[in-house]
Amino acid sequence: MQRYFINEPFVNQKRIEITGDDYHHIVRVMRMKMGDEILIVTNDGKVATASIEQVTDVSVEASVTSWEEESKELPVQIVIASGLPKGDKLEWIIQKGTELGASEFVPFIAGRSIVKWEEKKAVKKLERWNKIAKEAAEQSHRQILPSVHAPLSFKELIQLGEQCERKIVAYEEVAKYGEQSNFAEALNKTEPGNKVLLVFGPEGGMTEKEANELHAHGFILCGLGPRILRTETAPLYALAAISYHFELMR
Amino acid sequence: MQRYFINEPFVNQKRIEITGDDYHHIVRVMRMKMGDEILIVTNDGKVATASIEQVTDVSVEASVTSWEEESKELPVQIVIASGLPKGDKLEWIIQKGTELGASEFVPFIAGRSIVKWEEKKAVKKLERWNKIAKEAAEQSHRQILPSVHAPLSFKELIQLGEQCERKIVAYEEVAKYGEQSNFAEALNKTEPGNKVLLVFGPEGGMTEKEANELHAHGFILCGLGPRILRTETAPLYALAAISYHFELMR
Repeated sequence: MQRYFINEPFVNQKRIEITGDDYHHIVRVMRMKMGDEILIVTNDGKVATASIEQVTDVSVEASVTSWEEESKELPVQIVIASGLPKGDKLEWIIQKGTELGASEFVPFIAGRSIVKWEEKKAVKKLERWNKIAKEAAEQSHRQILPSVHAPLSFKELIQLGEQCERKIVAYEEVAKYGEQSNFAEALNKTEPGNKVLLVFGPEGGMTEKEANELHAHGFILCGLGPRILRTETAPLYALAAISYHFELMR
Repeated sequence: MQRYFINEPFVNQKRIEITGDDYHHIVRVMRMKMGDEILIVTNDGKVATASIEQVTDVSVEASVTSWEEESKELPVQIVIASGLPKGDKLEWIIQKGTELGASEFVPFIAGRSIVKWEEKKAVKKLERWNKIAKEAAEQSHRQILPSVHAPLSFKELIQLGEQCERKIVAYEEVAKYGEQSNFAEALNKTEPGNKVLLVFGPEGGMTEKEANELHAHGFILCGLGPRILRTETAPLYALAAISYHFELMR
């Protein structure tokens, strides 16, 4: 069943009015009619089956028939901070990362970021990134819609870390020297409900200076196995390992 | 350092002659000269640093200066069997799957495979798929060059399972009913050196009939977490979880 994220909390309402893009998608793309059912996801993560009761020229009214019980979200909140990469790699990280359960995406301007962030294109870019997250969230049956932020400076990235219980950096250089236990150790120390900041470098990785500064601010430097992962692959590795650790291992 | 896979075993040779594409890459693309160093990977998985000693019009001669000690390969052999997907998704699975440590890729014609396999395009396709694997293997510092096979029939897929110690199917339907422990259980029972066959459906997943038939032949049906993963994302999830299980968890 098609799911739609509505930008309001679940306040015991039985009827929900849908307008804008989702209205367009329901009526024009899916060509749904009265009696057809959709899934509604409220912005506090509740999921309901709702039956369409009225279709006007601008809105669809649906009434909730039942609420989804089981959680489909990771027990930890994962914030993916990617050193701004080239081309469409970030779009790809957002799409796959959303499928794999990330809750936030925060690009940052890294020392080795080659692309320049153009403020005049910022609004369009952010719109596009968040649209990609929304579509992937719907397709992968997420209960929370991940948000994508405008790129942070390195300083702001370190400040963001202060709001997180666990701060981890994927750092190729420690991997080269065989570091393979820090990531699993960090996950073992992570409690359900914790906010975890995962930092990944752009192409070419983090600089030594960046890694040292992050380490000095309590970020754990980790290797993600003996093979060299591309900048767009490493976040997916980490998210899959986190799902395996918290959702599949018993 | 750039690495090159040479299609011969390590037979104590000190000197290695490189021709063909790799010759072209070393001399024309990288513009290397006498004294420059490259990494040589023999087809039995040994890695050597070699110094270029002679460059002719058709070949490069290099002599081994040292052999790489540590293994960069997963302790288990992972065969990724993907129901033939649409578009370039398989190319993508091959590139990322190679980075993540897969040792073989075996597409198969699944009940829900939409694309038709055209025999007359087979040679070109296979060449391209294996080229993608070779480039990803070089870039991710693999010590073994993964092979990509021509698509199997479903019957041949079941036969392939007979050569593997462990046979696993990612099956969305069991995931929907909350199955979350079979995958980790299967990995716990897997020994270093085992050959593991991982089967993934195309878009739309495996049919119930296919899943039942695989189950009847000793394949374990697994969910890969509560979120719905795309056909190209599921193999990467499994490979990352396997690396985490065997390489990072201590």
